[in-house]
Amino acid sequence: SHRYRIAVIPGDGIGGEVVPEGLRCLRAAARAHGFELETVEFGFACADYWVRHGEMLPPDWREVLGGFDAIFFGAVGWPEVVPDHVSLWGSLLKFRREFDQYVNLRPVRLLRGVRSPLRDRRPGDIDFLVVRENTEGEYSNIGGRIFEGTDRETVVQETVMTRTGVDRVLRYAFELARSRPRRHLTWATKSNGISITMPYWDERAALMAERYPDVAADKDHVDILAAKFVLRPEQYDVVVASNLFGDILSDLGPACAGTIGIAPSANINPDRTWPSLFEPVHGSAPDIAGRGIANPVGQIWSGAMMLDHLGEPAAAARIVAAIETVLDEQPEVLTPDLGGSGTTAGLGTAIAAEI
Amino acid sequence: SHRYRIAVIPGDGIGGEVVPEGLRCLRAAARAHGFELETVEFGFACADYWVRHGEMLPPDWREVLGGFDAIFFGAVGWPEVVPDHVSLWGSLLKFRREFDQYVNLRPVRLLRGVRSPLRDRRPGDIDFLVVRENTEGEYSNIGGRIFEGTDRETVVQETVMTRTGVDRVLRYAFELARSRPRRHLTWATKSNGISITMPYWDERAALMAERYPDVAADKDHVDILAAKFVLRPEQYDVVVASNLFGDILSDLGPACAGTIGIAPSANINPDRTWPSLFEPVHGSAPDIAGRGIANPVGQIWSGAMMLDHLGEPAAAARIVAAIETVLDEQPEVLTPDLGGSGTTAGLGTAIAAEI
Ligand SMILES: CC(C)[C@H](C(=O)O)[C@@H](O)C(=O)O
Ligand SMILES: CC(C)[C@H](C(=O)O)[C@@H](O)C(=O)O
Repeated sequence: SHRYRIAVIPGDGIGGEVVPEGLRCLRAAARAHGFELETVEFGFACADYWVRHGEMLPPDWREVLGGFDAIFFGAVGWPEVVPDHVSLWGSLLKFRREFDQYVNLRPVRLLRGVRSPLRDRRPGDIDFLVVRENTEGEYSNIGGRIFEGTDRETVVQETVMTRTGVDRVLRYAFELARSRPRRHLTWATKSNGISITMPYWDERAALMAERYPDVAADKDHVDILAAKFVLRPEQYDVVVASNLFGDILSDLGPACAGTIGIAPSANINPDRTWPSLFEPVHGSAPDIAGRGIANPVGQIWSGAMMLDHLGEPAAAARIVAAIETVLDEQPEVLTPDLGGSGTTAGLGTAIAAEI
Repeated sequence: SHRYRIAVIPGDGIGGEVVPEGLRCLRAAARAHGFELETVEFGFACADYWVRHGEMLPPDWREVLGGFDAIFFGAVGWPEVVPDHVSLWGSLLKFRREFDQYVNLRPVRLLRGVRSPLRDRRPGDIDFLVVRENTEGEYSNIGGRIFEGTDRETVVQETVMTRTGVDRVLRYAFELARSRPRRHLTWATKSNGISITMPYWDERAALMAERYPDVAADKDHVDILAAKFVLRPEQYDVVVASNLFGDILSDLGPACAGTIGIAPSANINPDRTWPSLFEPVHGSAPDIAGRGIANPVGQIWSGAMMLDHLGEPAAAARIVAAIETVLDEQPEVLTPDLGGSGTTAGLGTAIAAEI
């Protein structure tokens, strides 16, 4: 039987609470579908590690992680101890860039049993995918300060887009749109205001659209696109966006579909030159960490995306179906963000049992 | 009696349809409150002008407009004829920057008679102000392309923040928060990912917060802030954001409060060295232009903000009250975006009558 080697990194805050539930469900799926998971847990990429080592990762992290089939990641960030940009650029954003996980894929779906904050929306009404460029764009670290400490103090930061970087994520998104029944793609832009990089993004998207005549493609400026996620979410199928716009849209989308607590994400290296990384959209949530009430569904669903990527689509589908069944039929186990009074472990256990 | 000189620029698309309704209501308010409005209409800052002159504005636009007390603006942008970044940087964005309108103020309020797309929200539940930095930040035009036409093609664009630019908009926002009953301010950031400019923005905001101990200030990353606009909009009072984040949040906020068609904005030069500019948040809307069904409320409410700025707060309040009364009590005049089947002129006339 197949055996997959998974690096597990719980990270900070509720990461350590939801990852065990993710693993519980992954193991249940492995048993049901007859494959094996070998997991190795790592204690880096968290504030504790930073306090002890002054770095987020060991120097040989590439070798340590590079041989795994995938990385199952919780959350990182504990701003009381280490500034967020230090912890994030020192770990998660480094993985994304150096493991060339150039697609960040985030499904937005209104599941049965989840109440959307939008009026009159039913399960099935909201069902789209955000494809986020994950290695370049607005997330650069080029720039700096001049005239520091004076009234002339000026800070600059570059957005950098490359043809390679833009085209490959667009191609991924168009292929994805082609594989879906509606074959519809929207690219987010802001070319009316951001006058150099965004017109370039539009140009490449329009060229790519010509190569996919079977995909209905259009663009929306990100400001109006955000508004339309609230007003007409049923309109979207595949939404492709730059790093920053994808970040915003993939928090907003899940909020429209009920809660960020359930949203999964896959940081994918489609060329499989390095492992891909799977993590919930939510962060370390210092405000609720340690209380055992964090929603584990984002982590569990991320596990399903991982199995899909590893070539176990049936097991992945089973996890998603189990999530939906439990959310719909077992209100007594729901966590507070879903309107219930259940616990992280209670919800995770219920989903694992259903699997 | 006071006499105000107003430059009127309808611009493109529905701009030409909603501006007359704005003027109708402004004149009604002037009659009721005993002041005079002298209006001069200009035919530049639109695609027609660009076709004839190859520019969006006449060379002496600063002298032509500089002496007015305010600019009443419709919308600009007609991408079939002139690329958006050309028309916008050639007119609206130029006014904002060169007339130093460094505050873009956008109220987000759920009015009586308007249905929010969010469940269970009632008039009064959503009532906050977005203060957007309006001259610098992500809207720069520094950058360019290298290796054009090759696989190495790379495009860069700078975000530029200055201490002067950041501090003055923060100060405005803190003063505004101080003047409101809840005295609460949220600054939008993304310092975990945008690692140079955004930590600087946070630093200046934290320093400013120390000078306003009577204002409860906190920050939210823009991704989660967008999500919270949908999940907990009642939580916000004054939200201050960079140029790009303010752009996104001030379309998303009005969508949560019902429709972008009613949202107003004020591009304010608080030092009054140049005229301020008042325009609806919606754009030229090519898809519905020419059909007489555009919602004029955003334009009319922008007129109210203009009167407030000119020192006629009672007249401004009367316009806003009239808008709310008509939306609430005359469903037969509502435009399609509000769920009715009325016309632009019908709704404008009803509001003017109420004034
Ligand atoms: C048209 C566009 C350039 C403009 C902006 O991004 O500022 C508009 O969206 C706005 O919000 O006024
Ligand atoms: C924590 C932060 C740097 C990160 C991002 O902006 O990418 C997060 O918001 C996400 O979406 O994964």
